[in-house]
Amino acid sequence: MSAYAIGIDIGGTKIAAGLVDGNGTVLVRGRRPTPGFDPAAVLATVCELVRELGPGGAGAVVGVGAAGWMDPEGSTVVFSPHLSWRDEPLRRDLERALGRDVLLSNDADAAGWAEYRFGAARGEDNVVCLTLGTGIGGSIVLDGELRRGRFGMAGEFGHQVMVPGGHRCACGNRGCWEQYASGNALAREGRSLLAVHGPVAKGMREAAGNNPHAVTGELVNSLAVAGDEACIELVVEAGQWLGLGLANLAAVLDPGLMVIGGGLGAASPLLLETAEQTYRSSLSGRGYRPFARVVGAELGPDAGLIGAADLARNALG
Amino acid sequence: MSAYAIGIDIGGTKIAAGLVDGNGTVLVRGRRPTPGFDPAAVLATVCELVRELGPGGAGAVVGVGAAGWMDPEGSTVVFSPHLSWRDEPLRRDLERALGRDVLLSNDADAAGWAEYRFGAARGEDNVVCLTLGTGIGGSIVLDGELRRGRFGMAGEFGHQVMVPGGHRCACGNRGCWEQYASGNALAREGRSLLAVHGPVAKGMREAAGNNPHAVTGELVNSLAVAGDEACIELVVEAGQWLGLGLANLAAVLDPGLMVIGGGLGAASPLLLETAEQTYRSSLSGRGYRPFARVVGAELGPDAGLIGAADLARNALG
Repeated sequence: MSAYAIGIDIGGTKIAAGLVDGNGTVLVRGRRPTPGFDPAAVLATVCELVRELGPGGAGAVVGVGAAGWMDPEGSTVVFSPHLSWRDEPLRRDLERALGRDVLLSNDADAAGWAEYRFGAARGEDNVVCLTLGTGIGGSIVLDGELRRGRFGMAGEFGHQVMVPGGHRCACGNRGCWEQYASGNALAREGRSLLAVHGPVAKGMREAAGNNPHAVTGELVNSLAVAGDEACIELVVEAGQWLGLGLANLAAVLDPGLMVIGGGLGAASPLLLETAEQTYRSSLSGRGYRPFARVVGAELGPDAGLIGAADLARNALG
Repeated sequence: MSAYAIGIDIGGTKIAAGLVDGNGTVLVRGRRPTPGFDPAAVLATVCELVRELGPGGAGAVVGVGAAGWMDPEGSTVVFSPHLSWRDEPLRRDLERALGRDVLLSNDADAAGWAEYRFGAARGEDNVVCLTLGTGIGGSIVLDGELRRGRFGMAGEFGHQVMVPGGHRCACGNRGCWEQYASGNALAREGRSLLAVHGPVAKGMREAAGNNPHAVTGELVNSLAVAGDEACIELVVEAGQWLGLGLANLAAVLDPGLMVIGGGLGAASPLLLETAEQTYRSSLSGRGYRPFARVVGAELGPDAGLIGAADLARNALG
């Protein structure tokens, strides 16, 4: 078993690659823009990145993480909404092209596994990990192993319905958690506040050039960090929804630790603090049971590729 | 390892005991009323029941299932709302009294484990099991093992909040799932329909002698089974809530099978059919992923003691 493995993180805008050692350290990095949705183009880019990592990665197994559902064997991309892929035999094709073993993982599973092995969740065998960005991705570690469920699709926390009949979600349903506690939720509420000409939205209106479409989750959060009262309100509201959903996850899974990563998770201490407060005041049975700790992720944007590499090393190495 | 184990199911009104073989068959049975909340009295009754099971059970390990939270080691009743126990060292006390090994389990965990080992979930390694009665208990089998979480409290499905600000729950929170999809939900809605003098409630009013307090979940369900239109509506409504919650559990856990047991689960095929329909029309990502099957439990009221016995045999035998 080689101490090195290669991790690939296929995102909607970029593909990141890294040569990762057995301690989760990224030794060499590579990065390319995602070449559209065509599987053959993505495959070619991944192959280039693997070669680019140099002789240290020669023969190392390759773990690929991407948004979407992988089958439980890590062979097929069953469905990837962002890449518009369906039943794509990416593992077989990559193994042929690279001449070595490959494993596919869901990107949130990979990130959560990385935090468990090398990051914020080291030493805690029952962990819920959230990737908080435009939506909410998730992963589950119970009794020291990643739990993917029967079909490889566990951890879709963002799509638990928390408000029946509520806001429409990109998944087609209504009232999904990620419509209330994510970057998209901040953006929608910010735009909505501009649209009603809310007087409190003065700062947001100026920052957005009076253009509602310029209001993003990042903008709302950065204004909140800078002290804008209206944006602070929006972040606190999203944090309360986040905490309520954490309480639901704790009722179901009873983790010892909940890790919150992702772009928004990393950028907003206020969101995390509010979420933890709400979680602690919402957990069913509080006062009669211990609380899970709520912490920020430690590995940042590298988590996906580190976890994909480690999962591949463990399964194939 | 003895082929026999003893299972004890401590309920609010009765304590059931059984000598259980390695195939989950109950060979000898015993039963007593629950002697109130006093731990010493409950312990004495359990000891009597164990002796009553006769020489076949001599020396057999004892598994005890009860409503409430057990620590992960199966040693202490951390909290049992129905028995008013807190931090009760029941295992130690029973081991001293009985002179043999004892393991404590949550009753819903025990029932779910029994369905996995010997009942409706045989052969499926990723299972969610619901005990649907006055409330909703639950258990999780992932990758072939019961998952209890960090503190032994996983599977509290009934207390996921599905309607923020909704009906008050016995747990103190608002909007818990079990306030919408359980025997208590049927009772509350039935009483509410009587209270507003709903003309459709004629059958229920007669059956309850015009006394709202006589409206129970069992009554509403039995009237529905008998064809009462208003009660059918109430059961269908509860079934829709049940299905919505199943979709949430599937989003989080991705089981291959969901088993619905408990008194109400066994008594209402309409509730289960409605729940499955709603689950299938609510699952996030439907059309792009397989559905978990939704089935009724097979072991009936014996599930708790069979599972408690088997868990004890596996851990101690």
